[in-house]
Amino acid sequence: MSVAILRLGHRLVRDDRTTTHVALVARAFGCQKIYMTDVDDSIKLTIADVNDRWGYNNFEIEIVKNWKNVLQKWKKNGGLVIHITMYGINVDDFFKKTKKDNDKILLIVGAEKVPSEVYKLSDYNISVSNQPHSEIAALAIVLDRIFNGQELRLDFKSPKLKIIPSPTGKLVEKIKN
Amino acid sequence: MSVAILRLGHRLVRDDRTTTHVALVARAFGCQKIYMTDVDDSIKLTIADVNDRWGYNNFEIEIVKNWKNVLQKWKKNGGLVIHITMYGINVDDFFKKTKKDNDKILLIVGAEKVPSEVYKLSDYNISVSNQPHSEIAALAIVLDRIFNGQELRLDFKSPKLKIIPSPTGKLVEKIKN
Repeated sequence: MSVAILRLGHRLVRDDRTTTHVALVARAFGCQKIYMTDVDDSIKLTIADVNDRWGYNNFEIEIVKNWKNVLQKWKKNGGLVIHITMYGINVDDFFKKTKKDNDKILLIVGAEKVPSEVYKLSDYNISVSNQPHSEIAALAIVLDRIFNGQELRLDFKSPKLKIIPSPTGKLVEKIKN
Repeated sequence: MSVAILRLGHRLVRDDRTTTHVALVARAFGCQKIYMTDVDDSIKLTIADVNDRWGYNNFEIEIVKNWKNVLQKWKKNGGLVIHITMYGINVDDFFKKTKKDNDKILLIVGAEKVPSEVYKLSDYNISVSNQPHSEIAALAIVLDRIFNGQELRLDFKSPKLKIIPSPTGKLVEKIKN
């Protein structure tokens, strides 16, 4: 199963932190790649720094100019394109009916407004509640449904730091590579 | 089941959008209340505006000065206090072992740094992956585990706008109250 994210509609400064959260969730939950529009290069440094400290999982960032090319190329190669939006059908209803047998999924995650074409060009529009909240939360829930909770148990390679899960405090192991 | 959120460590401007996302997720996913520190009153207007358009679900915001009082009062009244942190034990392991029979849960959601006392004063520290990502994503997953997906099917009262879920576009019903 290969899942990529297409992040759309980032507004500089205003969305910096939320876009960083989207990228970090994509990385932490085991996506292969995130395509981003309208961001500056600093997001790559942020992820490189996190990888350096917490380990690698073959996660890539590609900054793109034309999101439509990404979407169309994905469809042409047989990938499923799913737009996450509060206007879509319930994520759980969707995955009950649509088998997860497509091993390539592109998830589109917008900021506040996305071009109306996105609704039409995507194969499906799915929602994580029909209330307004957070594209970060919505992405996390959709990835959870795709990976069935296994996204919370991934092992990252060559970390400098590794957490020893603890119910009462902070335990971090420093690893000499 | 009554779930409240305690949002800690908001830094003005820098965390404005992420704190808004935390509050919106708490509202959309059916929490009863959010306690917030260090925020200005504008968050109340944001939520009031969302309620006005998308409906009500008895969700409250309380801006507090002393987070420790909130935590201790909650414990004194028999509530369970759970701190969500990347250093904690896996959320799914936690809910497998700890029955959700406590009908009052306070979830603590920090911004980048939280005081070390939070780890000790909480009943449990639980994680949504041991990788750094987003407290918004982490909160969503924990609420999902508590409410078993029902948080995505809530019905809000007296909305002005109601979405008709659609796989291909935007369908919104305007409701005359």
